Amino acid sequence: MVNLASTEKFCELADVHRTIEGFESGLDNNDARISPAMKFLYVACKLGMSHCNFTPSRSMVPALLQLAEQCGVPIAGEDGKTGQTLLKTVLAPAFAIRELKVEGWFSTNILGNNDGLVLNDPASNKTKVLSKQSVLDDILGYEVEDHQVHIHYYRPRGDAKEAWDNIDLIGFLGERMQLKLDFLCKDSILAAPLVLDLVRLLDLAHRRGDRGIQKQLSLFFKSPYHVASERPVHDLFKQHQLLQSWAAGAAAR
Amino acid sequence: MVNLASTEKFCELADVHRTIEGFESGLDNNDARISPAMKFLYVACKLGMSHCNFTPSRSMVPALLQLAEQCGVPIAGEDGKTGQTLLKTVLAPAFAIRELKVEGWFSTNILGNNDGLVLNDPASNKTKVLSKQSVLDDILGYEVEDHQVHIHYYRPRGDAKEAWDNIDLIGFLGERMQLKLDFLCKDSILAAPLVLDLVRLLDLAHRRGDRGIQKQLSLFFKSPYHVASERPVHDLFKQHQLLQSWAAGAAAR
Amino acid sequence: MVNLASTEKFCELADVHRTIEGFESGLDNNDARISPAMKFLYVACKLGMSHCNFTPSRSMVPALLQLAEQCGVPIAGEDGKTGQTLLKTVLAPAFAIRELKVEGWFSTNILGNNDGLVLNDPASNKTKVLSKQSVLDDILGYEVEDHQVHIHYYRPRGDAKEAWDNIDLIGFLGERMQLKLDFLCKDSILAAPLVLDLVRLLDLAHRRGDRGIQKQLSLFFKSPYHVASERPVHDLFKQHQLLQSWAAGAAAR
Amino acid sequence: MVNLASTEKFCELADVHRTIEGFESGLDNNDARISPAMKFLYVACKLGMSHCNFTPSRSMVPALLQLAEQCGVPIAGEDGKTGQTLLKTVLAPAFAIRELKVEGWFSTNILGNNDGLVLNDPASNKTKVLSKQSVLDDILGYEVEDHQVHIHYYRPRGDAKEAWDNIDLIGFLGERMQLKLDFLCKDSILAAPLVLDLVRLLDLAHRRGDRGIQKQLSLFFKSPYHVASERPVHDLFKQHQLLQSWAAGAAAR
Repeated sequence: MVNLASTEKFCELADVHRTIEGFESGLDNNDARISPAMKFLYVACKLGMSHCNFTPSRSMVPALLQLAEQCGVPIAGEDGKTGQTLLKTVLAPAFAIRELKVEGWFSTNILGNNDGLVLNDPASNKTKVLSKQSVLDDILGYEVEDHQVHIHYYRPRGDAKEAWDNIDLIGFLGERMQLKLDFLCKDSILAAPLVLDLVRLLDLAHRRGDRGIQKQLSLFFKSPYHVASERPVHDLFKQHQLLQSWAAGAAAR
Repeated sequence: MVNLASTEKFCELADVHRTIEGFESGLDNNDARISPAMKFLYVACKLGMSHCNFTPSRSMVPALLQLAEQCGVPIAGEDGKTGQTLLKTVLAPAFAIRELKVEGWFSTNILGNNDGLVLNDPASNKTKVLSKQSVLDDILGYEVEDHQVHIHYYRPRGDAKEAWDNIDLIGFLGERMQLKLDFLCKDSILAAPLVLDLVRLLDLAHRRGDRGIQKQLSLFFKSPYHVASERPVHDLFKQHQLLQSWAAGAAAR
Repeated sequence: MVNLASTEKFCELADVHRTIEGFESGLDNNDARISPAMKFLYVACKLGMSHCNFTPSRSMVPALLQLAEQCGVPIAGEDGKTGQTLLKTVLAPAFAIRELKVEGWFSTNILGNNDGLVLNDPASNKTKVLSKQSVLDDILGYEVEDHQVHIHYYRPRGDAKEAWDNIDLIGFLGERMQLKLDFLCKDSILAAPLVLDLVRLLDLAHRRGDRGIQKQLSLFFKSPYHVASERPVHDLFKQHQLLQSWAAGAAAR
Repeated sequence: MVNLASTEKFCELADVHRTIEGFESGLDNNDARISPAMKFLYVACKLGMSHCNFTPSRSMVPALLQLAEQCGVPIAGEDGKTGQTLLKTVLAPAFAIRELKVEGWFSTNILGNNDGLVLNDPASNKTKVLSKQSVLDDILGYEVEDHQVHIHYYRPRGDAKEAWDNIDLIGFLGERMQLKLDFLCKDSILAAPLVLDLVRLLDLAHRRGDRGIQKQLSLFFKSPYHVASERPVHDLFKQHQLLQSWAAGAAAR
């Protein structure tokens, strides 16, 4: 099962999400804090079906992680890393290697499809922007002073998307430099092959008997699932190594 | 010894460069095919001094590689990877991971310092452009159909540099996308810390008894020294691993 | 007197602004709808002093236009046309001449000075954005389907400003084209000479006995003062002709 | 007759071009300095047919201007002003009005059609680049220190074209600013409606009895035809006024 629905409004973690029992009694009581994305994941677990959340809507809460493990279901998410964030997780490691300090990163997106329209709603926008913002600091190892992500519905762009980034860098001796990116991309074209790969890889994981969070699939996501005690891996090249090691292990069996 | 001189004109490999004896008799006869950059490297070897060629001028020829090994001298080069090429060796691996085919990559550079003036000379320009062009195909594993690199002296940019790139990508189902980069950078600021690191790392290598090509320093160069039987490593993240492994080995002693 | 204060919050036209008597009784009652910008203009009129409103804050209301004419005071405003809007009023006439239909115009601004900080406040932002948005439709003669202007405080840009524009054009046979602008400018440097010229030209107008709206100064403003029965002139080249004709008339006396 | 052929190689003005007699004896002798573009214009004059040279190839030489006037033929040229140069003749007048000094203007073009392939030939490229370069200094009234125009055949762009410009500006107190343009345009789509308008307007001129250079059609060209004693008008808005005055005159008859 792959969740490809529109972004839901931002949802805080609450007690109802902590245990399987609590979650199920929440379901019985139509608790509003249980979102559609969570219900999809719940059903997948119950059906013993691998689940992938390709959207930024929160689904992986402690109760459902326990359930996935209990039911032997591999899960992966969240929020497909397709365009602007992909570039971030590629460039940021390079800036770190070269000791170029990221003073600010300003990102704006214009898109004209239904996805853009939904993200014009402030509640959904918050969910998406939070998912996009977390990656930088984790990779760089410090807090970027001014990291902004804006998303705008702009009808003339249609199904295509444009992501414009300005990055302010501080180099040797405090000298300032700037890098600008303009990515004229197509969201669905970037997303579709990732979804196909995820389906195949989750199926392989299921057949191998893997259950719960599939960390080796992190390279597909903006906010890779991770347990609370760990930091997610965002660097695309480290993520790629995780997948390659896992695939080598799978092939070795 | 660090070679930071202006780019020399392009120089074909010739018989005079193949053996130490041939090279030395060429020196005696003022053979025009022995460039200043080669003479610097020859002197360094004779003095038992580590040598780094930070320029694109050809210096590492078979005769001098033998000499460096004979004299116990570690050498590293060539052509510091500072701006536009740095970004290439960062983005190209990501395109490979995401199966985005690079159909074309058009790069233009404007710079207003003496370096730019020298590169306005077609013979020097050829040396530089060849050094910049090799990286893509090696990383991607196929020949990019149209990869162009242009360098122009443009006085108003002064000591700063601007590198503009347009990348044409083909994604899923043959759909086309474009990424543009505009890097407003400062060549000397990007280069200086690399030179300092190279000096320290070559010194460490020397003290460790390493001699000849220092492959672990590849991440500093556009055209990393390599023996004829191997391909150079261009991917910045693979280069970084080489350095980290070497450093871990050095620390372990 | 030149108003160079920070942008005030948006202010709707109300009855209190319609007549001199009403306005003055509003002043006596501390009517909150009378803004500081209006008070500055009121004082200038009473002192017989030429007045220029270089900010987007509303000042020219019917009561104060009457007062300026009564007091023999020339007035000019509003909102200095310095960077992004300047380019709009230059490019839009060209698109009109070439029959290139503007389907959408997306403008975003990042700036890191106090001006930017004030504009992060939604109420002030609205004042500014409305002032920036009006120009296109007037020049083009039709309503641009999607014209957006965004302003963001972004600290690393400091006193400088960056204005990024994407323009979607429809040409012959409905074919689509795009133009992108990136203006790395300095607001104060663009504004200061305009203010100096305005002071000199208003002084000349005063000495000539001109009073009320100085239409010939329209080229300095994003929202040129105009009477309700007329449309403002936004096309920079038409505005320039207005100034040149007026200056020729002044020289002829 | 409209000349829409590929750009010819650059051609210096010579004695053979100065008089009708000299030109015709050159024709008899197959003089290589008489280009195909000139022969087209010659034939048009002889047939009493209006002629438009939409290419940068030199056609309007003194002998043919005399012939056109003798034969009562209106002529217009040269080199359709479609994309990058159009923007230049729009922005430069604005910089002049705002006293922003243009220190440098770097223009690069990538295009992948046959036009681009022809312009990869240095001799044709020179013709084109010279035509593109003249406009700035004429509008600004001073020599731009560093104005470069580069054209590159880049296959992936196909029938479309991309024109990237960097403009260095000096403002108040010597402060530097930069404007970048990226025009993703389509040459044929920009050119075709101009050609249709030229045909109609030349026909109208012919019917009105106008002959020789049609100055009012300057707004369609990068290098508008002009007599040696005059400077061409390049400012798009002044060119537009020329056309409007002429059209008003035509309507008034």
